[in-house]
Amino acid sequence: MNYAIGNENAGSQSVGLAEIYSPIESHMLAVDKLLKEQIASASVPIAQRLAASGLASGKRIRPAMLLLAGGCFSDLKKTHVAAAAALELVHVATLVHDDVLDKADERRHEPSLNSLCDNSTAILTGDYLFSKSFEVACATGSLESVHQIAQSSCDVCEGEIRQNLATGNFELSQADYFEIISMKTARLCRVACGIGGVLSECETTTIQKLEKFGEDLGMAFQIIDDVLDIVGTEQRVGKTLGTDLSSKKMTLPMIHCLSEYESLGKREELLSKLKAGITAEQALDCLRETHSITFAREVARGHANAALNFTSELKESQFSTALKQLAEFVLSRTH
Amino acid sequence: MNYAIGNENAGSQSVGLAEIYSPIESHMLAVDKLLKEQIASASVPIAQRLAASGLASGKRIRPAMLLLAGGCFSDLKKTHVAAAAALELVHVATLVHDDVLDKADERRHEPSLNSLCDNSTAILTGDYLFSKSFEVACATGSLESVHQIAQSSCDVCEGEIRQNLATGNFELSQADYFEIISMKTARLCRVACGIGGVLSECETTTIQKLEKFGEDLGMAFQIIDDVLDIVGTEQRVGKTLGTDLSSKKMTLPMIHCLSEYESLGKREELLSKLKAGITAEQALDCLRETHSITFAREVARGHANAALNFTSELKESQFSTALKQLAEFVLSRTH
Repeated sequence: MNYAIGNENAGSQSVGLAEIYSPIESHMLAVDKLLKEQIASASVPIAQRLAASGLASGKRIRPAMLLLAGGCFSDLKKTHVAAAAALELVHVATLVHDDVLDKADERRHEPSLNSLCDNSTAILTGDYLFSKSFEVACATGSLESVHQIAQSSCDVCEGEIRQNLATGNFELSQADYFEIISMKTARLCRVACGIGGVLSECETTTIQKLEKFGEDLGMAFQIIDDVLDIVGTEQRVGKTLGTDLSSKKMTLPMIHCLSEYESLGKREELLSKLKAGITAEQALDCLRETHSITFAREVARGHANAALNFTSELKESQFSTALKQLAEFVLSRTH
Repeated sequence: MNYAIGNENAGSQSVGLAEIYSPIESHMLAVDKLLKEQIASASVPIAQRLAASGLASGKRIRPAMLLLAGGCFSDLKKTHVAAAAALELVHVATLVHDDVLDKADERRHEPSLNSLCDNSTAILTGDYLFSKSFEVACATGSLESVHQIAQSSCDVCEGEIRQNLATGNFELSQADYFEIISMKTARLCRVACGIGGVLSECETTTIQKLEKFGEDLGMAFQIIDDVLDIVGTEQRVGKTLGTDLSSKKMTLPMIHCLSEYESLGKREELLSKLKAGITAEQALDCLRETHSITFAREVARGHANAALNFTSELKESQFSTALKQLAEFVLSRTH
């Protein structure tokens, strides 16, 4: 299976996803099979387009978190596979709609669904995938798990709505940024790990720790994602702005830079530039001056370290080792 | 509570919705309260817009079907109310996205959600409502009910996708039309009645009959809806085309007309007119010539009669009487 691993571990000590996923390889294949069956069960024109879009691939981080968390505490069952597939379907549904909102032509180097059909069909297909996720979730036989997936799906949507409403708000606070990414990204990771524990019949305190682990990993993942969006700017030929800044979306590095500029008396100047439309050169100069990329990476490392602390509490196994590697992978990935 | 009943029973023998709903009035109020709580629990800007949109009102036919079906067999419990609210949330979620797809400015004479904010927020809010519906569904405590709601939600989406892909296909068959409306409209009605029975602990054969009743009522409801879209043409000043024909959506009357024209050797001529853009006068002349409105009303009556046959099997009660009245209401409504 291709987890789009490419060279993400080039120059770093962390291992790639294929290796991290090796203890759960057969279950990840089962998740993949279940997802493909769900896609295939849609009406023919939709199934063909879904299969041709970039949605059939992906890192599958949420399913992996659920399976690894569960694997630490019991044998993995079909119920784990169903919950893992359900969470991925929620994630994929949000991606389909994200691509509509962003008018994106590509997803994972393959055509986006909206580019393969029209916006209307893409919106309705996203709805279909949301609904499918709950049908699949029911196969866990655990009403508690279905409820948690539903609640987290609400939170993801609310996080996306808040992010959307914050577009163009260059004065977004760090607190608001953290709340938005906690909802839109970390929530599904939190629930993935928690449900892994629920389905492995863990005690409540263990489930809570698993949830905290998932939350930390999700926060680190999103912050690094936002950093890579900017760092990519330096690597791109012609130095175009990252997608976030060019779509007027504030993320941690620029929020930090603005607040550092406050004490330097340069905040208003930067705000004006952001509002007028900043160039890539200008943005990078500012971020370098305030070491804001480094700051964001440190915040991500803080979350990853909290996650790593938890893994050190776990009984040593191939699953706990993989969770540890996953936390390191999240920090070290370069795309 | 306002069920938008207006004059829908003017000139007919059927009673209005307020009267039909009287045996379940307190439970309908509980559904309404639950829905308002779900809307209010969204983040503030969304909650305000949802409340201001036309989504807060509506006929609430699906919740009523569930409660009346359940009421025929047991006392109504909180679980019935939760399932009823969950089904309405699925319905409202599809309406939010329909209004985005149709670029509609109004819903139930109030502003549509997309007119109160932007398309992106409306798409994400629809997603939020889908997710909420499953959170609420879990309050039934019945995994079977959640599963049925999820399956029917998939079917609704698939029906909408197929309808969307059939836009501009003037050669849509009657069989395809029936399959599309069965999925997009009748499925939720079917599941509403079935779950009413499940939560009232009915036997399987009774549940199956309730499902068939709901399906028939849903089919009749949609066919009449499609008839009213055209009949409204006659009543509108200046005789503008119905929304279906002007958006190149084929419904039963015109499908019937085309097939009648086949034997009259006029099918190709009408197809050309439809493709080029037919006028309201031309469309009505054709439909009158083939008695296609009458035909569609007869098909709807066939479904309503099947539904009425089932109600005559039921033990007499205020609930079974109301189900009977509901079937008559569906046929006789004029908007």
